[in-house]
Amino acid sequence: MALTWKQKDLIEIGALSCDEMNTIFSVARQFKASAQHGSLPKSLLAGRTLVNLFLEPSTRTRLAFEVAAKKLQAEVITISGASSSLTKGESLRDTAQNMAALQADMIIMRHSASGAPNYLSQVVDIPIINGGDGAHAHPTQALLDAFTLIEQLGNIQGKKITILGDILYSRVARSNMECLLKLGAEVTIAGPSTLVPQGFAALGVRVCYDLRAALQDADAVMLLRIQHERQAATHFPSIGEYTSMFGLNQERAQWLKPDAIIMHPGPINRGVEIDSELADSNRSVILQQVTNGIMVRMACIHLCYAYHNGLPLQPEL
Amino acid sequence: MALTWKQKDLIEIGALSCDEMNTIFSVARQFKASAQHGSLPKSLLAGRTLVNLFLEPSTRTRLAFEVAAKKLQAEVITISGASSSLTKGESLRDTAQNMAALQADMIIMRHSASGAPNYLSQVVDIPIINGGDGAHAHPTQALLDAFTLIEQLGNIQGKKITILGDILYSRVARSNMECLLKLGAEVTIAGPSTLVPQGFAALGVRVCYDLRAALQDADAVMLLRIQHERQAATHFPSIGEYTSMFGLNQERAQWLKPDAIIMHPGPINRGVEIDSELADSNRSVILQQVTNGIMVRMACIHLCYAYHNGLPLQPEL
Amino acid sequence: MALTWKQKDLIEIGALSCDEMNTIFSVARQFKASAQHGSLPKSLLAGRTLVNLFLEPSTRTRLAFEVAAKKLQAEVITISGASSSLTKGESLRDTAQNMAALQADMIIMRHSASGAPNYLSQVVDIPIINGGDGAHAHPTQALLDAFTLIEQLGNIQGKKITILGDILYSRVARSNMECLLKLGAEVTIAGPSTLVPQGFAALGVRVCYDLRAALQDADAVMLLRIQHERQAATHFPSIGEYTSMFGLNQERAQWLKPDAIIMHPGPINRGVEIDSELADSNRSVILQQVTNGIMVRMACIHLCYAYHNGLPLQPEL
Repeated sequence: MALTWKQKDLIEIGALSCDEMNTIFSVARQFKASAQHGSLPKSLLAGRTLVNLFLEPSTRTRLAFEVAAKKLQAEVITISGASSSLTKGESLRDTAQNMAALQADMIIMRHSASGAPNYLSQVVDIPIINGGDGAHAHPTQALLDAFTLIEQLGNIQGKKITILGDILYSRVARSNMECLLKLGAEVTIAGPSTLVPQGFAALGVRVCYDLRAALQDADAVMLLRIQHERQAATHFPSIGEYTSMFGLNQERAQWLKPDAIIMHPGPINRGVEIDSELADSNRSVILQQVTNGIMVRMACIHLCYAYHNGLPLQPEL
Repeated sequence: MALTWKQKDLIEIGALSCDEMNTIFSVARQFKASAQHGSLPKSLLAGRTLVNLFLEPSTRTRLAFEVAAKKLQAEVITISGASSSLTKGESLRDTAQNMAALQADMIIMRHSASGAPNYLSQVVDIPIINGGDGAHAHPTQALLDAFTLIEQLGNIQGKKITILGDILYSRVARSNMECLLKLGAEVTIAGPSTLVPQGFAALGVRVCYDLRAALQDADAVMLLRIQHERQAATHFPSIGEYTSMFGLNQERAQWLKPDAIIMHPGPINRGVEIDSELADSNRSVILQQVTNGIMVRMACIHLCYAYHNGLPLQPEL
Repeated sequence: MALTWKQKDLIEIGALSCDEMNTIFSVARQFKASAQHGSLPKSLLAGRTLVNLFLEPSTRTRLAFEVAAKKLQAEVITISGASSSLTKGESLRDTAQNMAALQADMIIMRHSASGAPNYLSQVVDIPIINGGDGAHAHPTQALLDAFTLIEQLGNIQGKKITILGDILYSRVARSNMECLLKLGAEVTIAGPSTLVPQGFAALGVRVCYDLRAALQDADAVMLLRIQHERQAATHFPSIGEYTSMFGLNQERAQWLKPDAIIMHPGPINRGVEIDSELADSNRSVILQQVTNGIMVRMACIHLCYAYHNGLPLQPEL
């Protein structure tokens, strides 16, 4: 297929056309095939400087972007919460303009405030990729999930996908709903009613409080991580009660179709939202998601950089 | 011009001849032109190991050196205050000798004690670059400021430069005075008398407590950051009073000549030592200073390494 | 000599044959000669991703592995205790499987629990190198010490080596005893009886509580670091008393043969286990150990990677 991409930045799924999403998947597929043959791409980003600006604590996503960027031979500068004296008494805009003045070629940003990466993209002229902002969006997670679904199910169009857990506060759930609906899936959201507001139905998803109904015709179930600290007190009585009502265990997994797959963005809480043996079973594609996260992020970095600098979208492998 | 450089280390401005300073500017100018064409130098430092030994907290200068070294394709090992278990119970000399034994090819050092980089240069045989030591010196900041002045004003000889703020405790001010005087500028220092000791006149600078007089014939004004924590209590009554007396605002900027420029080593305190709109105005070259900081540091690293290893001073671009 | 190596992992000395140890020394010797000529190897690891998973605080060993890996042109991802949110609420196995899924090509691991790297090697299919686990083993330290001994004494077979200090809790001592005995040395362990259990005699070492007897016929004496915090209270009355009884000072060094050498894994406590001038004397090979640590670790990384991936053991220099 011809590659289509007209984005300087990757801030949210809503900005992408279906052709652009398929372009990401196509490029990611090429990077993955190349990696499986043990070769490294002749990257456009060789020697370029990518800043990992992670102002909200994160290890997993930060590492995934760092690995992806380094596999593209970029130099990575990491600024994490721990080393944010840069940002002490400095506005976000000043920080971003300084990064650009430091000759950064791209910024990956995670921030606790929804909208921060969008703001950044307006004040600097280099590409910005959103690594998760508040409860707003986590587009690369949604894209790697979609990539994994296509790899596992062949296609997303018409497939039934259930997202189970804390939908209310989850940027992963938000970006996934948007991405899956756009690609033609039938999406169900499920969990305790305090975490799964009826209002989301307006987006075009089915809201379901009956776990069995939510699972029995699904082609894939995406679990979300229960954030011990934050949620237990306010939205359900205790972790134990969440697990007893909505944790995915061996017995409930029997309700799934035989070839339905189980996904999780990690890190998993074994014995909380997912039974330990189930996480390690053949149904689980959790580790494939991690690997695909590298490939999809390589594609996103490559495409934003290539488009912004007027270079070919097709990577040289 | 022929390049002149006979320094293993860069510890303070006083050690450099004018020819050597001009050599730094010439090499930095070549790196900048090369970067603007999007090309990367064929660096002497490719694959060499540079240690960023930052025993006093710093983000901005550390990142600038890290970016500069990586643009020269060096591998960078960062040791910051946070990870200084290396230095636990170990003398500075042992730390430095261990770095050299670890096959480091160069050390960039920041330290809270004046003289620490000088001491280091005497106990190890690899080049040491001073990234700021106590209230003593910050030579690369002075050199990037001078480079920016030449870029903006065409020349430094005979130009009138005013340094405004906390002169007493500032290594930036000390290195800048030395550098600018050496390059033939007429230097004025200004600010509250508690922070601008009359004794500095002995260096050959004009000491001026009248802000209008200090600004009105300046070709450039260099602001210094007011260190909230440290200074407020002891040297002026409050931040607010500093700002009301010596903060550079729109009204006072009218006292400047129309084409005078405003500089600041960053990070700026908007609304304290500088009015926010002024910081973003055409007069301000603050972000150019950041970019030039990369180029000047690339030049310093390149020259010290080339000289120490008997390699050509002229970079291959 | 022909190179012999059949190890995916390097967990403990016991797993290595003498031929394999000599293979490490041979490859390390080649890397060292190459570095002395200022050239960098054409490494098999160029562009590969090595994870430095240091879940117990460490600067020295972590840096040595980082430098070694970068000299082999690998990309290094560091996960230290400080940034272990990855591992929060996650089992060691999940962390390791995630690292592998992130497309890491090798993991260097330090852990406070004995056996952790061995467990890791069973749950992931990429090479694991033990960077020190609990009081169990620190194989690369033993190998770099043996390499240094061969460099200094010509050979290990039949040489008399005394290890002095806290034998009981030291993974360095354990790995060194095993390594030296295997290579044919006569090993003496010495120090206060509370730290040098008689039971170690069963390994084939001489246990000696008389310092003069332990030193007088040694070809080399290896000192161990006294861990101020941990040991003082329980195993000897005070640091001062340790020093007065077992500290190596100028006077006691006279008991050594004229050409006996002094070793220490660092960081040294000057004036505690070793007199300051002695540490800097010609007898001391402490800094050579540091440099050799880079070369030996390059060899270990190279060999595990080459074997696991079916590539030539002989590095291309």
